[in-house]
Amino acid sequence: MYDRIKGFRDFYPDEMQAYRATFDTLEDTARGYGFREIGTPALERTQMYVDKSGEEIVEELYSFEDKGGREIALTPELTPTVARMVVAKQQELSKPIKWFSTRPFWRYEQVQQGRFREFYQTNIDIFGSAEPEADAEIIATAADALTNLGLENDDFEFRVSHRDILGGLLASFDADVDTEEAIRTVDKSDKISHAEYMDLLVAAGLTYDQAEQFDDLLDCDPDELDDLIEFAGTERVEKAVTNLQNVLAAAEDFGAREYCTLSLETARGLDYYTGVVFECFDSTGEVSRAVFGGGRYDDLIEGFGGQPTPAVGFAVGDATLSLLLQRAGVWPDEELSTDYYILKVGDTRKEAARIARALREQGHVVESDVSSRSFGAQMGYADSINAKTVVIVGEQDLANDEVTLKDMESGDQVQVPVKDFPAAYDEPRVADFE
Amino acid sequence: MYDRIKGFRDFYPDEMQAYRATFDTLEDTARGYGFREIGTPALERTQMYVDKSGEEIVEELYSFEDKGGREIALTPELTPTVARMVVAKQQELSKPIKWFSTRPFWRYEQVQQGRFREFYQTNIDIFGSAEPEADAEIIATAADALTNLGLENDDFEFRVSHRDILGGLLASFDADVDTEEAIRTVDKSDKISHAEYMDLLVAAGLTYDQAEQFDDLLDCDPDELDDLIEFAGTERVEKAVTNLQNVLAAAEDFGAREYCTLSLETARGLDYYTGVVFECFDSTGEVSRAVFGGGRYDDLIEGFGGQPTPAVGFAVGDATLSLLLQRAGVWPDEELSTDYYILKVGDTRKEAARIARALREQGHVVESDVSSRSFGAQMGYADSINAKTVVIVGEQDLANDEVTLKDMESGDQVQVPVKDFPAAYDEPRVADFE
Repeated sequence: MYDRIKGFRDFYPDEMQAYRATFDTLEDTARGYGFREIGTPALERTQMYVDKSGEEIVEELYSFEDKGGREIALTPELTPTVARMVVAKQQELSKPIKWFSTRPFWRYEQVQQGRFREFYQTNIDIFGSAEPEADAEIIATAADALTNLGLENDDFEFRVSHRDILGGLLASFDADVDTEEAIRTVDKSDKISHAEYMDLLVAAGLTYDQAEQFDDLLDCDPDELDDLIEFAGTERVEKAVTNLQNVLAAAEDFGAREYCTLSLETARGLDYYTGVVFECFDSTGEVSRAVFGGGRYDDLIEGFGGQPTPAVGFAVGDATLSLLLQRAGVWPDEELSTDYYILKVGDTRKEAARIARALREQGHVVESDVSSRSFGAQMGYADSINAKTVVIVGEQDLANDEVTLKDMESGDQVQVPVKDFPAAYDEPRVADFE
Repeated sequence: MYDRIKGFRDFYPDEMQAYRATFDTLEDTARGYGFREIGTPALERTQMYVDKSGEEIVEELYSFEDKGGREIALTPELTPTVARMVVAKQQELSKPIKWFSTRPFWRYEQVQQGRFREFYQTNIDIFGSAEPEADAEIIATAADALTNLGLENDDFEFRVSHRDILGGLLASFDADVDTEEAIRTVDKSDKISHAEYMDLLVAAGLTYDQAEQFDDLLDCDPDELDDLIEFAGTERVEKAVTNLQNVLAAAEDFGAREYCTLSLETARGLDYYTGVVFECFDSTGEVSRAVFGGGRYDDLIEGFGGQPTPAVGFAVGDATLSLLLQRAGVWPDEELSTDYYILKVGDTRKEAARIARALREQGHVVESDVSSRSFGAQMGYADSINAKTVVIVGEQDLANDEVTLKDMESGDQVQVPVKDFPAAYDEPRVADFE
């Protein structure tokens, strides 16, 4: 007996059905906004990830040399691949480019609750618009996807920030600040004590008073954003604040403002974000990590050798999303369902098959015996697959030009004429004949 | 600029749409028969493939040692993974187990037309029934999938054979035959000359006369199958022939016999098949290789450490299937389509967004401006995404409580009251208001 590799999962039909329903809803929501599906390779040059994220990323990659001597890696995320694809057809593609896809990714990480080495993500991105409407459409698509999955307003919140407000505020202090270090500190501020937070900001170059002042500034209501402009007095902060205000105003028009909370501490770990960023959190706090996140990354395409192309998007992973949906009690049903089981008794295969085919052509899920089993064994199987109705095709009944319909919930059964069955009905049920 | 790895493909939205439609049809057909979707890992232990196919398989694998020292490989096919999953839950799963999935696989092979290093397959299998109805249901599912894709009876044929008829006939000769070598020779008989074919059979251990006789026997009509039993005079051939006849009879009842041609030369390369095998061919011969194939493999689960469990299934790959569908002129449309583009002129974002959301809630694909572009640029974009109807939301019109609908095919346009738009209509079109 072989074992599965650690951090990888087998999805049996019951669990798979729930994941399929979840991703279908995400994708249907994206399709409604005119996002188009793309298909992408599982392997890319390792160099692509090193260039984007530095040598240390290799530690997290499933990377190896292929038989042709190429240094390749199992893709740990979609963005570099999509950037490569945009650059390759930059001239032909009409802008905005609106793409989505759902597929597995791989990272060699510590396995823990909600974190696997193989995980599934839906990525949704817009390339070619720097306007606040693009950021807002991404936020609205994410919000619609969650409400379409059955979540309510009080189940989740999007914590929204702007990368350049943090950077701009830090730059406005009279101090030699390590901006990236300071932003990383902000990003983890809710996981550490206030004292530790202050210490790390001081270590990043602020005085203690400046650190306190910075912390106060970040604790800002939406209607106080203009105070930040005044404090900093720089065009950089003014532009960032105005952009964030414009995105929130567009989100209001797009019906998604109600899900957004201003949260300047939200920085998103990844260095490649350049503008508005957001993270989705479980409002109850039961799912303690961010469920997913996204934001604007205007420099990536150019960094990949393309023309300057603004970009904004988000990615939802299967593990944290399923935790949120389960917590909220809206995780899809894992019970399999079957519309009809065609039970044959004796030498009735031809007629049983005719009925099965006709019901399938009507669009139903129809199983029939492929194991030459007894009446009782077939009934047991029909029950195990949650068949709603069993059509019993017996020699005796057929001799009377009848078949028997059995409702598996009530146990009621009824004999119906086999002539015109099932053609005369859309979805014949026992109750139709009682 | 980064390059894609050789043998791997990027699917842009137009092409992706056609593949998605194709796989959706395959999967919907399988669902109609009660097959259930499973999800499987991209990586498995390399040893699993070595045990199934021998050391030489490693040459074709993307295999490597992971950071935990495991010898692992990118999965080159689904069957071993599914066998592992069946064995892992053998007790709990009710039989027959009917599973399907669509996903990529990887083989380090020569890249040529219709063959890539990353390819997509839909696998459909039944575990737990040795009855001819199971083989026939697999054949019927495959046939229905192809006709649901738009193929006609004269576009394709299933060449059907039985692995043990070949083996049994060979064993009935008074000769020391290398059976596997002889079956491999039969498998490639249509790719080599008759003289070469005879030579290889002789090399495998038959005399020249026996080789001629064997060749004659294989050229057999369905109603001559009993002659084979008579010739061999062994229980083995009798059982195999009877089983094949029973599968064809069940296929007749299941509506799939018309697609089947008896073809005893069809052996399927893989050694693990044990019973009926079939290959789908383009009837016109324009796609020269088998489009796909399948068959019975009753020994695999036991070989993987499980209880003896009969199995039958097939797998369809994207590359050859797309060639067949294109040859027959039924490859799905690659033109993107969009139901509505909402074009805003001036400060009308709020109303434009309301209309877009309402149309999306009706189930339509709706794009709107996220780039603050001019009227002309928006019209050009709407045309590029093949929008059927453009809803023009202008300040002037709104002042008169109207919006303008433009049919993008005819160019006709009409002003409609914004009150109750679009709520009062299911799918408002210009023609509804003319």
